[in-house]
Amino acid sequence: MAKTNKNARPQPRLPKGLRDIEAAELRALNTMLEKIRSVYESYGFEPLETPAFEYTDALGKFLPDQDRPNEGVFSFQDVQPSREQIDSGEWVSLRYDLTAPLARCVAQNFQTLPKPFRRYAVGRVWRNEKPGPGRYREFMQFDADTVGAESVAADAEMCMLAADTMEALGIKRGDYVIKVNNRKVVDGLMETIGLAGEENAAKRLTVLRAIDKLDRLGPEGVRALLGEGRKDESGDFTKGANLTSEQIKQILSYLGSEYAVMGAGNDAKGWDASFDAWKSVVGDSEVGRQGLDELKQIADLLWASRYRYDKMSFDSSVVRGLDYYTGLVFEADLTFEVKDEKGRPVRFGSVGGGGRYDDLVARFTGQKVPATGFSIGVSRLQAALTALGRTDSAVAGPVIVTVMEKDRIADYQKLVQTLRSNGIRAELYLGNPKKFGKQLEYADKRGSPCVVIQGPDEREKGEVTLKDLIEGAKAAAAIANHKDWKETRPAQVSVKESNLVSEVRKILDRHGL
Amino acid sequence: MAKTNKNARPQPRLPKGLRDIEAAELRALNTMLEKIRSVYESYGFEPLETPAFEYTDALGKFLPDQDRPNEGVFSFQDVQPSREQIDSGEWVSLRYDLTAPLARCVAQNFQTLPKPFRRYAVGRVWRNEKPGPGRYREFMQFDADTVGAESVAADAEMCMLAADTMEALGIKRGDYVIKVNNRKVVDGLMETIGLAGEENAAKRLTVLRAIDKLDRLGPEGVRALLGEGRKDESGDFTKGANLTSEQIKQILSYLGSEYAVMGAGNDAKGWDASFDAWKSVVGDSEVGRQGLDELKQIADLLWASRYRYDKMSFDSSVVRGLDYYTGLVFEADLTFEVKDEKGRPVRFGSVGGGGRYDDLVARFTGQKVPATGFSIGVSRLQAALTALGRTDSAVAGPVIVTVMEKDRIADYQKLVQTLRSNGIRAELYLGNPKKFGKQLEYADKRGSPCVVIQGPDEREKGEVTLKDLIEGAKAAAAIANHKDWKETRPAQVSVKESNLVSEVRKILDRHGL
Repeated sequence: MAKTNKNARPQPRLPKGLRDIEAAELRALNTMLEKIRSVYESYGFEPLETPAFEYTDALGKFLPDQDRPNEGVFSFQDVQPSREQIDSGEWVSLRYDLTAPLARCVAQNFQTLPKPFRRYAVGRVWRNEKPGPGRYREFMQFDADTVGAESVAADAEMCMLAADTMEALGIKRGDYVIKVNNRKVVDGLMETIGLAGEENAAKRLTVLRAIDKLDRLGPEGVRALLGEGRKDESGDFTKGANLTSEQIKQILSYLGSEYAVMGAGNDAKGWDASFDAWKSVVGDSEVGRQGLDELKQIADLLWASRYRYDKMSFDSSVVRGLDYYTGLVFEADLTFEVKDEKGRPVRFGSVGGGGRYDDLVARFTGQKVPATGFSIGVSRLQAALTALGRTDSAVAGPVIVTVMEKDRIADYQKLVQTLRSNGIRAELYLGNPKKFGKQLEYADKRGSPCVVIQGPDEREKGEVTLKDLIEGAKAAAAIANHKDWKETRPAQVSVKESNLVSEVRKILDRHGL
Repeated sequence: MAKTNKNARPQPRLPKGLRDIEAAELRALNTMLEKIRSVYESYGFEPLETPAFEYTDALGKFLPDQDRPNEGVFSFQDVQPSREQIDSGEWVSLRYDLTAPLARCVAQNFQTLPKPFRRYAVGRVWRNEKPGPGRYREFMQFDADTVGAESVAADAEMCMLAADTMEALGIKRGDYVIKVNNRKVVDGLMETIGLAGEENAAKRLTVLRAIDKLDRLGPEGVRALLGEGRKDESGDFTKGANLTSEQIKQILSYLGSEYAVMGAGNDAKGWDASFDAWKSVVGDSEVGRQGLDELKQIADLLWASRYRYDKMSFDSSVVRGLDYYTGLVFEADLTFEVKDEKGRPVRFGSVGGGGRYDDLVARFTGQKVPATGFSIGVSRLQAALTALGRTDSAVAGPVIVTVMEKDRIADYQKLVQTLRSNGIRAELYLGNPKKFGKQLEYADKRGSPCVVIQGPDEREKGEVTLKDLIEGAKAAAAIANHKDWKETRPAQVSVKESNLVSEVRKILDRHGL
């Protein structure tokens, strides 16, 4: 009943920053997700999933760049389908991460959950940010969180989890590093440069987000964002924090010093030296000293469990852009180089991160519930694995049973069923069977390892012809002319129909499928 | 930086018809999805995923009950985050099924896709319908579609796929049936009762949706919907088709006759007899006769591949509620009984269905692209498997390493790492370790098979104590009093720390974990 009135035809198109995902990428994605899942499971996390959208106030607003209208979150009014409620729509938003919904869920079910509550979740999230190359408005995250554990052991564990996940995915030591810091140290720095107090809250957030961009913009970009502001390549202007040049100098000096000592020895002394140096940064700030103390405890735990220089570093520039972190912050960083859009070599960078967010449940209950977590940016991580040649998407195409006699479809379908019921991926050619060449073209396009042919000759003899397409392609490349090819018919064999399964399996085995 | 101002605190709650999904259900879900996936893969379908929302006009409106405002689809304006586009928001909608997005995707990429194009997709969809028991506004579908195949062989294959999927999930023959019909037969009936022509399009749709409700409302409910309308239990009134009593009689007679002959013989004669009877229903209608002819061909193909009375039936009441079907329509129906909300026994009913939708791509291109598909209602199917005791969600809880001496967290963490790196799911107790009883309670709540304990005594001897919680629960139940229990300490054993892994594995093996 669809109208095909030409004038009314919609354009088949997607909104910007959205995309379809095809077979090879999806298969690689699923393999990757299963590996991550098995690491998370081995740590004792349990799955929990929440809906795609929630009440806007329950999700809260913790994204960067809230200053532009409609930025960040997709929101709409939920008008429920019953007459009474039609005028009482409340605002709902698509989730922008998996942490805010977890906080809502924990607050809602606090009495019945085991404590600590350890869950993992994987799912799509949506952000209404400017799309760009490799930057979409729908993407996937894979999170693990421990709620209700105050202990820094829970923090240390998150860092270990990040490292173990990278290794389970086949990323070599040296190609990744888990970079660790603590928001309280940064808060200490803020205090020493006179940015404490509620009246400076907005300024502190701007500073955090400027620091967070060090990797991407370099020190000069950060300097601009700490000062009057910065115009990006597209001409968009981002307002700065308007700090004094003395304040800016102290922040840049904190960022510039080499606190992370990678591969510097075989005891914990290197890290200790870094923490000693940071003492001057936090000065007399109590929260700063507390942050340093937590980092030291984390370092000891990591060290004892053999998570050392080759996997972990402590890094002043890691602060994370999200608003809700209160202690540990960390990133899983890939250190190998790839080419950027302009062909310049760049380090791949962050594929995930997380930290401690002790106030997120308290938003609802008023009661402090300590929590810490790790979140993987799934698409970025998959891009990294692709760059490393570490994705695994090889699934053999189906065996195609061709149609030679149009009135014998039922017989061909039976051949297909026989293959399938013996565990062989198979399908009947369902297009117009008139041109046999089209059927072979289709099989090629599907990556089919072989086709099954039964014309009148084969039928009379009770046989089928099997054409090994992989061998055939090789042979065709080696044969000089069409006449030779026609005469030899390489990689083609006629077998008894009753031997169909075993003969097809021989071909699959030959190619390791 | 989260505000905990009491007055501003949001309520932790979800909009109606949305829910969180917990571990046991998710594990069972994943097992189920993998089984479905492997059947779809064996048929040669390839994965393809599309975004959660699209332009509203690209999705089209094919849902039932469009007459209420804001019914059916969640829509909002997409204001893109760049200055120029802020005033040019276009309407987008959350997808309400996986078929409409597929049609958009095929129209958009027609030139490059292999034809026929065979894809599968699994994902959440959203409908703004009235929530009820077991009826949510977010749910999951798992679809397979063949686009670009005119052949009824493609239709027959969809019915086979449905049957094979039910069996792969462990649903016994006799507990399910694939019910098959053809929209063209219904169109033929419409012609014979004078409802042909563009001017009756809306009326025909109302009739279709009335027929679709036969299972749920019975013949009297359908009679009301074909006539003046029907008031449901909540008092909501649904407008009827206002047919004449003669028209209603003919439709009810079509629905009432027993065309499906289950288990009636061992050749195709039973089905043929049904089709002969349907001839009188479609009368001289050409489209009706074409529908009958297609059904006969499908029956022959099913019969030849041994999909027979024990799996398939032809059923006049199957029409499917969605607007876009043009030929084959079918349902996967579960025939065993469960109790409804009021404790009355009811047949479980439909868990999926599909059919042919030849005009859906033409909406975009104007060019007819034949297509046929099968869609599983994942949540309903999972509910059915649960009712049948066919779900499999057993994952052992993690081994819990307890904390006896607070300053030895690093040592305990090492024990955890040792277990994990030997493939044993394990975690450190991360709550407040002061009360040992709390740690055991936590382990119980997590379904932990055993806990690892190392206090000062064990430490000095280089030992750990393992407590078998499964055995312990049994023993505790058998022991009469607390004193006996304390003296015997059942299911508890001290072992050398160096034998930790092998001794824990013994306990897991003992319980088949």
